[in-house]
Amino acid sequence: MKSIGIGLIGLGTVGSGAVKIIRRNKEMISRRAGCHVRLVRFCDKFIRSKPDLGIRSGDVTSDYHDLLKNRDIDIIVELIGGYEPARTMILDALRAGKHVVTANKAVLAKYWDEILSTAQKHKRLVYFEAAVGGGVPVIQGLNEGLAGNRIAKIMGVLNGTTNFILTKMSEENMKFSDALETARKAGFAEANPAYDIEGLDTAHKLSILSSIAFGAWVKISDIPTEGIAKLDLFDLQLAEREFGLGLKLLGIAKENRGKVEARVHPAFLPIGHPFLSVKNEYNAILIEGDSVDDVIFYGKGAGQMPAASAVVSDIIFVARHVAEGTAGRLPYVTYDEKRKIKMLKADDSLCKYYLRFTTKDRSGVLAKISGLLGRYRVSIDSVFQPTVIDEGKIGPHAHILVATHAVREGSVRKAVRQIDGLSITKAKTVVIRIED
Amino acid sequence: MKSIGIGLIGLGTVGSGAVKIIRRNKEMISRRAGCHVRLVRFCDKFIRSKPDLGIRSGDVTSDYHDLLKNRDIDIIVELIGGYEPARTMILDALRAGKHVVTANKAVLAKYWDEILSTAQKHKRLVYFEAAVGGGVPVIQGLNEGLAGNRIAKIMGVLNGTTNFILTKMSEENMKFSDALETARKAGFAEANPAYDIEGLDTAHKLSILSSIAFGAWVKISDIPTEGIAKLDLFDLQLAEREFGLGLKLLGIAKENRGKVEARVHPAFLPIGHPFLSVKNEYNAILIEGDSVDDVIFYGKGAGQMPAASAVVSDIIFVARHVAEGTAGRLPYVTYDEKRKIKMLKADDSLCKYYLRFTTKDRSGVLAKISGLLGRYRVSIDSVFQPTVIDEGKIGPHAHILVATHAVREGSVRKAVRQIDGLSITKAKTVVIRIED
Repeated sequence: MKSIGIGLIGLGTVGSGAVKIIRRNKEMISRRAGCHVRLVRFCDKFIRSKPDLGIRSGDVTSDYHDLLKNRDIDIIVELIGGYEPARTMILDALRAGKHVVTANKAVLAKYWDEILSTAQKHKRLVYFEAAVGGGVPVIQGLNEGLAGNRIAKIMGVLNGTTNFILTKMSEENMKFSDALETARKAGFAEANPAYDIEGLDTAHKLSILSSIAFGAWVKISDIPTEGIAKLDLFDLQLAEREFGLGLKLLGIAKENRGKVEARVHPAFLPIGHPFLSVKNEYNAILIEGDSVDDVIFYGKGAGQMPAASAVVSDIIFVARHVAEGTAGRLPYVTYDEKRKIKMLKADDSLCKYYLRFTTKDRSGVLAKISGLLGRYRVSIDSVFQPTVIDEGKIGPHAHILVATHAVREGSVRKAVRQIDGLSITKAKTVVIRIED
Repeated sequence: MKSIGIGLIGLGTVGSGAVKIIRRNKEMISRRAGCHVRLVRFCDKFIRSKPDLGIRSGDVTSDYHDLLKNRDIDIIVELIGGYEPARTMILDALRAGKHVVTANKAVLAKYWDEILSTAQKHKRLVYFEAAVGGGVPVIQGLNEGLAGNRIAKIMGVLNGTTNFILTKMSEENMKFSDALETARKAGFAEANPAYDIEGLDTAHKLSILSSIAFGAWVKISDIPTEGIAKLDLFDLQLAEREFGLGLKLLGIAKENRGKVEARVHPAFLPIGHPFLSVKNEYNAILIEGDSVDDVIFYGKGAGQMPAASAVVSDIIFVARHVAEGTAGRLPYVTYDEKRKIKMLKADDSLCKYYLRFTTKDRSGVLAKISGLLGRYRVSIDSVFQPTVIDEGKIGPHAHILVATHAVREGSVRKAVRQIDGLSITKAKTVVIRIED
């Protein structure tokens, strides 16, 4: 049996998990890879031994070039995350003739073309199952298992941190800030959680899934992204009570007549929707193909071992190909630099909306608002005027809840802007999408 | 671009679906396969044109050897199903140097070793995504995406026909025979449905999943299999009302201290279990790995286009490898003829049970039954004596429902056999497993 060497960059949570799995399942991994998978050397900013992982300080370098120069290393595993220096490390590794396994969604979403074209040019593999859905093998599923399908839609609960927070808000009636604090204490939110909370992590993952599904790079800058930080518990409660809706942060991409629409935002879903039973750190990804219809992948989207599991699965497959001498003859993801995608303008996107207007408590207000919505062709599905009057900072006021039919986003924005300028309006209108 | 030739055997439902997809998504398939995928010739027992599929009668032969001899054909797609002549066709194809794509779970489960070793010997690929889960890419997921995991458990709703019937029984309070008739009319049950109803189809699929997961052939003869034909609607209703349980036909395989346990049977699941929302022709497969924890794959497990979608995805990947000259250098499923698995004896299997005793309506009966259960160490979790007394054929009687803790199957069988022999017992005891 041949021996295939691994150089691993980043001995943090996922890196340590991957080392644990490789040590623990040594025999099984050799059998599946058809070769010995040997951890040759590590790169980390801290040079120190990790006795529980069988790592001596001499095995660790702080200069990743040491790994690239090492002829015993065939595969570089990048697990430090973020844009840089991860991007440079990956590109240098490919240029140095190494294959790459990474869990880094940020660098892939931002430098998709550069990384894939460099890999193709140097006939090296880049595998990245752990970048989306943690341990859930959705990249494989989309890229290979569903390859015969023209993908019509991708919809995912893709971020564990925000899903944990939203679960706490809806199940325990916690305010956003309290739920965030709980997530931090449970280890599901980082010290600076902006990256998750603002939806950027979800956008990165959606960019990767869409780029595979539609055969061309869907850039993060082409994905309008809204996070969950401004959500009011009040709306979760009202929407559940009055419309039977539950809330999730979703990444959604659709193809329609040659144009792709991709967006990240919180959205209400009807009670009974399978995504509403996706709780805490779990992820779920629905993929709709023209032949297969809906397929759902579900599992732990965050945590050390699920992500490490995906990394090791990638290592096994790259190692198999290296041992057999076939690695890099075919790229993992089919990719054509010249193929471009037309994105749908955000204003042209069609969606149902939940609108909460905060107005003076007087007659004629509903007529005024519904008149303005009508003028912009925002068609109303149902209206509620809950009796909750929060005196609060803004004094006595009323709420009007509207659920719309599917309407153009541009029209909704225009109507709401106009309504927000009226003297009867006492606070900015809350606008949240409703998905089916 | 190279052209890779397909010879397709079986122009039935799935075969016609595959041809439709290949014609419809031609450009996309070429892009993903990196070559033209060309339908060269067809084999079917009926020599006739199919104008809607662009097939002339001259394209069809009734002798599959014509396909094997054709030098333009690289890949044989076998879609006739069943053990023979499918087995001979697949083996002949591999020996003739063709790669094989099949949707045939029966032939794979029954001749796993023979087919995989022949493929390995001739360095040819065998892909079979459509054999399990219809369009759901669970074979890819298990074989590649979760390869870094030691698989602890597989549990699946794997058969669309029986799931359709059970959905009708539980949601519309239909008797088994009426639900079967409804399934027939809806096109979800064949004229002779025994293969599905008796659990054999589920056993075939479980055999394939287990053989991949545990790295050695798990034979159908090693999978104790019970179907759903003897289920009484009464038990579904009682178990839901008294214990909050719902019923599914499950295929379950587990590894425990080097031994594998595999079984197919109807089982109750607690309300809220994700599998209870898997309805009608949908399938769901839960895979538990030592690192990834639970992953669930969900989607349409039956129907023309979902199964055809999986066949075409396989064709794309085999064609890619053929075009690149790498096909068959590595087998798809890692397989070692010499590796054997120890199966757990059915009697040693541990499970919770639902037991319904039908007894004379007199005092002391419960004491007698619970005494006998205790003697065989069948530990009782809860007992109900519903007031429903069906006079029916057997005259006045009472029911005693027992939910047990996890107990040895052998013990339950012995206790029930003894209880069934008592003079107070008026009908054979109903024994149904409860899973978590």
